Parts: sequence; structure tokens; C-alpha cells
Amino acid sequence: MSHPTAPTVDVVGIGNALVDVISHESPETVASLGAVPGSMTLVEEDRSVELYAAMGPAVETSGGSAANTMVGVASFGGSSHYVGRVRDDQLGRVFAHDLRSVGVGYSTLPAPDGPATGTCLIMVTPDGQRTMHTCLGASSLFGPDDVDPDVVRSGAVVYLEGYLFDRPEAQAAFAAASEVAHEAGRTVALTLSDSFCVERHRDAFLDLVEGHIDLLFANEAEICALYRVDDVDAAVDHVRGHCRIAAITRSEAGSVVVTADEVVAVGAEPVERVVDTTGAGDLYAAGFLVGLARGRDLATCARLGSLAASEVISHVGPRPEASLAALAAAAGIPTAG
Amino acid sequence: MSHPTAPTVDVVGIGNALVDVISHESPETVASLGAVPGSMTLVEEDRSVELYAAMGPAVETSGGSAANTMVGVASFGGSSHYVGRVRDDQLGRVFAHDLRSVGVGYSTLPAPDGPATGTCLIMVTPDGQRTMHTCLGASSLFGPDDVDPDVVRSGAVVYLEGYLFDRPEAQAAFAAASEVAHEAGRTVALTLSDSFCVERHRDAFLDLVEGHIDLLFANEAEICALYRVDDVDAAVDHVRGHCRIAAITRSEAGSVVVTADEVVAVGAEPVERVVDTTGAGDLYAAGFLVGLARGRDLATCARLGSLAASEVISHVGPRPEASLAALAAAAGIPTAG
Repeated sequence: MSHPTAPTVDVVGIGNALVDVISHESPETVASLGAVPGSMTLVEEDRSVELYAAMGPAVETSGGSAANTMVGVASFGGSSHYVGRVRDDQLGRVFAHDLRSVGVGYSTLPAPDGPATGTCLIMVTPDGQRTMHTCLGASSLFGPDDVDPDVVRSGAVVYLEGYLFDRPEAQAAFAAASEVAHEAGRTVALTLSDSFCVERHRDAFLDLVEGHIDLLFANEAEICALYRVDDVDAAVDHVRGHCRIAAITRSEAGSVVVTADEVVAVGAEPVERVVDTTGAGDLYAAGFLVGLARGRDLATCARLGSLAASEVISHVGPRPEASLAALAAAAGIPTAG
Repeated sequence: MSHPTAPTVDVVGIGNALVDVISHESPETVASLGAVPGSMTLVEEDRSVELYAAMGPAVETSGGSAANTMVGVASFGGSSHYVGRVRDDQLGRVFAHDLRSVGVGYSTLPAPDGPATGTCLIMVTPDGQRTMHTCLGASSLFGPDDVDPDVVRSGAVVYLEGYLFDRPEAQAAFAAASEVAHEAGRTVALTLSDSFCVERHRDAFLDLVEGHIDLLFANEAEICALYRVDDVDAAVDHVRGHCRIAAITRSEAGSVVVTADEVVAVGAEPVERVVDTTGAGDLYAAGFLVGLARGRDLATCARLGSLAASEVISHVGPRPEASLAALAAAAGIPTAG
């Protein structure tokens, strides 16, 4: 860059813009619908309509993995901006409102025509596990044109969700954003999102992780799927040479942060009752990214991640209901101000 | 009627079909928006957009006073049918889904054009009180043509919400439904809905209560507004000659049921913490109506009402999250089966 500039926000997130439709269902209902518990399945509109008809009464709330993370960053007192595509319809207005109302920047123009705003049907079972069926809708047309290079350059970290990898145009958008970010000296982060998504696009993910990513988020199933190994230790051996930092989440066992020369393990925050695990990974990333953008050490980043994840799994819905800045301050690791 | 037939469902409800948009706000925010805490205000679309922009992140969930009551009846194991007007849009489909998924009959055709499905912006303060701004949308065109006489005749009780009285065409629809119901030998019930609504349409309400209603639901503020008196005892003296049964709810003091020759007082069910009072009156009516349709005495009807109200105020949202049939069975007053 001939005129390098300092970032103006902590994190820019790019992902599939979705409104979540959340219902409580029995494991038997989930099974009878042919769904894989805990997974995310992409579906066309007719299948989405069919599944919705089989679901019980639901609540609608804004979601989208990277969008949830940007809301988490804002809740910690950090600054964030989101890039993702909705339609100019009722759910699209809901999506934009819920970002802007918590201070997340959002400037992607809503599509005036084409598919409706995307939805994610989420069936939550009594054990708190969520099974998701996503109809991408307007987000299925997300591509390089939706990514404003100035927005990408504005973030200290650019954060991408792996779910984008289900479509070539979205992959291209990610590649373009990644290039712009690196040219501007920014950190590029990726979350693998879903082990089935990794299975579907393993080569593309491997290429990215090995050549273009500074910071990788994954859970155990995802990182093992990426390297086709059975245990996390083997996956750690693989990943450590390939990207600067890998943060591997392990549910109630906390997380492990891996760099070329250290492995930092941090426990999970205790939770009285797991109500809905939707958003756990998204919010872990939020805490980690805020810590990183504010220059904290990796153990502190991971603790902030655990703190945010514990909040979001204690209630229904993928976004924090309490101020994460206040929770962090109470835990002795203030992030705001 | 030359061919009187037995009712096929317990209750048919007629009301404004609305999707609720619920956010948590401070009392200061509510005041700064010029809203009257605890009230329902009708607003045009531009004011609704302005208020929404000022609200924090929200969840969307199906609402509408009489619709909530019909869902409550179904949750008790009763049968119910709803009549109300939505547009053929995203929120309209959400509204219809949430009724049908719990077994409430709903056959009103969605409007193919005109205003969007109505919304009710609900700001919940930390004390659990809700302040509502309703943009009627598609429901603003609700009129006599939307009421199928066969549907009205199908209910043992026809239940009308007072909110309908804000528009002459809806009043006309109510009058028509009331006439059909009485001709078929059905019971006609009305809830006054809101003291400000009563103030706006006092003469129309008085005419109804004194000449056309068998069962009246009201809270203290509403019944006092109807008779322009300051205390409930005075209101009770007024109402007892005018309609067969009046059920007056008194928040944490329970309810009083008044007939020509008796006054039955029933306490409220204890609630650990009041989270959101939205739907309290709607669900009281559900319990009462189920009891009535199943031939229970008035004290039992009131207890079922208290039970349902206590469930709905213990969580966010205007519809039951637990099975009311199970709660009633646990309380020794089974309603299902």
C-alpha cells in the first residue's frame, strides 16, 4: 500500500446474513425429519417450507454466524462492521435493525429483487443442542461485488465464516477480501463453522488455512475433519505450522490456543444450565477477537471467548442478552473503554 | 335457527392479527419516546418505523390478543379457531404457522396486496411491564367480509377483543359475528383490552356490554373506565345487571367473577419473578374460556385463568411455553381429554 492507514474498527465480519427461526423440538421429531443432530444442512426453499410446517411455534431473531460474532464484539465494547446480503423485505429490515441497534456498522445494500432474506430453521432439543437447516435466500447471491474494499481495510481483523464456502461466488468474495486485508496489513481470521461444511470443501479450506489465514477458529470435529485425523493432538500437530494462531474449542473442556511455539489451554466458564448451544462458537470468536484487537495475551483472549460462549448458551438465541463488557469487567478483564 | 347444530370447537376468537416485536428497554427510553407505560397506542407506519429504529435488538413472535387466547385454549387441550387478517408476506406466514403448529384452526385467507402484516412493537421494562405500539397493517382492513358465519357458529363461545373497536369496519364485523353467534345459541364474550381503547369508544362498548355480551373480561382500569368510576366495587355494581358474567382481573390480587347473584374472588397464582406481563389478560381469558366450555364452575374457571396468566408472565412473549394442560393437571384441575 502506498498510503497505509490505521484500522478504524476492531473487527470486520463477512458471512451469510440469516434470520433464525427457533423452536423447541423433541429428539424424536428431529430424527423423524431426517436431520443430523448438531449439524447445519443447506436446503432449498421448498424443503425449508416443508421443515417449517413440521416445526412447532417459533421465535424469529437475527442470526448468521459472523453477524452474531460482530454483535458479540460490540457487546464487549469493541467496534465492528458486518458485510452480508439480505433482501429489502421484512426479515431483511429485522436483520439490519438488530445489527445497527447495538452499534454494529452495516452498509451492505439490501437487494431490491431476487430471493427473500435467508433463514436458518433451528430446532433446539432439551439437551440444548441445535440442529439447523439454512435456506440462503438473498445470501445465495453474495459475491465479490458485495464486498467494499474500504470496509475491509477499516478492520484490524477481517473475520470470515466457513459457511461461505458452500458457494463459489462467496469463496471468491472471501479471497478478494482476504487479499485486500493482507495488502493493508490486516489480520485475516477464519472459522471452519461446521464439520460437514469442511468435508464438502476440504481442499479449499486446506489451501486457505495453509496459505492465507492468520487466525483459525475450529472445534474438535472441524479441525479433525480438516486434517482427516481422529484426535485433536494429531490435528494440533498439523495446524501449528500452517497458521499463526489456531483457537480450538472443546465444548465443556474449554479451548486450546496453538501457535508455532506454544499451546495454551483455557477452561470453559461454568454454566448453570445449557439451554441452547446456538452461537457458542460465534461468541467464543467474539471474545477472542476483542482480546486480540486490544492486544491481550492469548490466554486472556481465550478466557474472553469462554466468557461470551457461556453467556450465549445459557438462554435461547444466538446473541448475548447481557452486556459482555460488564461480564468481562466482573471477571477482572475489562475490555470496554 | 331452523337447523341448530352443536358447536364443534370450544372457542372461536376474532381479533387483530399481529406479530410482536419485543425488546428490553429502560423506563427512561420508554419515556423519551413519549410513550405511556403499560398502554397500547395505535400508530401509522412512519411512526412505527421511527419507534423501531429507536428500539434495541428484538425478537419477533406471533401475538395478537385474541390469537394468544386461542393458543392458550389449545395448550389447555381445548379446541379453538382464530379469525384475523394478515398479508401474504413473511410475517403473515409466521403468524399462520404459529397458530396451526399448535393446532389452532385458522382459515382467514391472507391478503394478496395492501398493507403488510400488522406488528406490535413491545418495549418490556425491567419490572415486567410492557408498552405497546401497534401498526395494524393488513388488519386495518379487517371487516365483515373476513368473518365466515360457519366458523362463528362452530364455536361454543365466540370471543372478541376490544382492540377491534378502534375501527368501524372491525366493529361491524364484530356486530355481525355476534348476531350469527346468538342466533346459533352460542355464548358471546368480549375483552375490553385496554383502558385507553375503552376511553376512545366508551359508548360503543357500553352499548355492547349492556345489550349483546354474555361474558365480559376486563381489568380494573378498563371496567372503571367503562363506567367512569374510581373503584372496582362501584364498577361491579354497574356491570352485574348488564351481562351474565363479568370476570375482572386484578393483577397480583387475582380476579373477581361477578354474576347477577354471586361474586367469586380467586387469588393469583404465585410467580417467582414477573419477566414480561404481555399476554397476562389474554391467557387468563384462555383458562376461563376452557373452563366455561367444559362446564366448570366459575371459581374453577377463574383458577384456570390465573394458572395460565402466571405461566405467561414468567417468561418473555405472549404465548405459553409450557403445556397448560399439564399445569392444570398438576394443580388438580385437569382440562384435557
